[in-house]
Amino acid sequence: MYSSPLVATPVVLAFDVFGTVVDWHGSIVRELHTLYPELDADTFVRAWRAGYQPAMRRVMSGELGWTLLDDLNRMLLDELLPRFGLAHLTEPERRHLNKVWHRLDPWPDAVAGLTRLKRRFTVCTLSNGNLGLLTNMAKRAGLAWDCILSAEVFRAYKPDPAAYLGVAKVFDLEPGAVMLVAAHHDDLAGARACGLGTAYIERPLEFGAAHVKDVSPRPENNWHARGIEHLADLLGA
Amino acid sequence: MYSSPLVATPVVLAFDVFGTVVDWHGSIVRELHTLYPELDADTFVRAWRAGYQPAMRRVMSGELGWTLLDDLNRMLLDELLPRFGLAHLTEPERRHLNKVWHRLDPWPDAVAGLTRLKRRFTVCTLSNGNLGLLTNMAKRAGLAWDCILSAEVFRAYKPDPAAYLGVAKVFDLEPGAVMLVAAHHDDLAGARACGLGTAYIERPLEFGAAHVKDVSPRPENNWHARGIEHLADLLGA
Repeated sequence: MYSSPLVATPVVLAFDVFGTVVDWHGSIVRELHTLYPELDADTFVRAWRAGYQPAMRRVMSGELGWTLLDDLNRMLLDELLPRFGLAHLTEPERRHLNKVWHRLDPWPDAVAGLTRLKRRFTVCTLSNGNLGLLTNMAKRAGLAWDCILSAEVFRAYKPDPAAYLGVAKVFDLEPGAVMLVAAHHDDLAGARACGLGTAYIERPLEFGAAHVKDVSPRPENNWHARGIEHLADLLGA
Repeated sequence: MYSSPLVATPVVLAFDVFGTVVDWHGSIVRELHTLYPELDADTFVRAWRAGYQPAMRRVMSGELGWTLLDDLNRMLLDELLPRFGLAHLTEPERRHLNKVWHRLDPWPDAVAGLTRLKRRFTVCTLSNGNLGLLTNMAKRAGLAWDCILSAEVFRAYKPDPAAYLGVAKVFDLEPGAVMLVAAHHDDLAGARACGLGTAYIERPLEFGAAHVKDVSPRPENNWHARGIEHLADLLGA
């Protein structure tokens, strides 16, 4: 189940970023191994990332005012450090570590795949990461986005419909002319509920080699690809 | 007066777009000559553009709710057409003509200059144009922005301080680490009042060869360049 010929060809491909385009787990583990060799980096990183959804829900429920992902990550980091014996980290060390989310490496197929897709489609991000984070990441990793869109632009974190519909509105298109590309079924379900097309990308190692993720195809997605170059193959780009 | 060695080197260069990076007058006149050969294209285009500042002021004063530039341009176009004998244009013709602002050609030095500056700085737009317009323009013209920022992101049209300060906030920088690059002294004055650096770009033909603009250096700007490649020379990029 790799293709869905009945779906209209999209004009805009909006990419989820963390996990879909870049390898957050591997990148942060590698940096932590260098900085803090004694740390259980795998557990630390997964705990950091696990705090992300609840923190965004606190924002979207109104419990917390509008807060950028960089600031949510920093709140979570400050809570996490004492639990891992790193309460002694100084302010500059904390600030540097928090910005590791700006320094994530792309999956091996991401740069080549995006460069191909860009010839035929408008390729943009639709990430819960803030604009500065996504720009720094793209510049370092060579991700040639046509436009960087973010929860920060729409003041709404995915899966809020305002984020998905916001992309269509920016480009003055019907929702069906936009396709979300993501490695997460819940994100794709949010997009589908708003009328966007959906493409699933297999990232079995998103949580590291010790926690392989089930990447079986699900029939509700319009496309299912092994990576971004494979998506370019499927879409004829 | 080309350089200002006392100024701190910026991290981010934020570009005004209409007139500074792209030639709105020449591009629209060329398209109008093809579409409507009988029209006085020069007068028409300058009248269209002249409506832009008052329309944005109506938004920023609160008289008009938040309105994207595409929609302001359309309102102005509908007012203008009858005055130029074009009241008969159909809805699809008006929509196509209004999107000419998405199809503006860059000045000859813009693509090469930006590509050089991008190696050393983060280069972004700070335009009153909306995100979709700026993205379509960049894709067509080959403008390799690291990030597209717009009044649409900050919900504030320049010269509102929220637009200039918004760029610094996006990148988590002091205002002095951001430099506005523009062909308009009023825009640069707005940026300077917020603590940003300023670079003036000479565009003597912004309003067409029949209305040459004074591009004399003014001492209040940090840099003064004949074009974007010259700015790259001055900044050592």
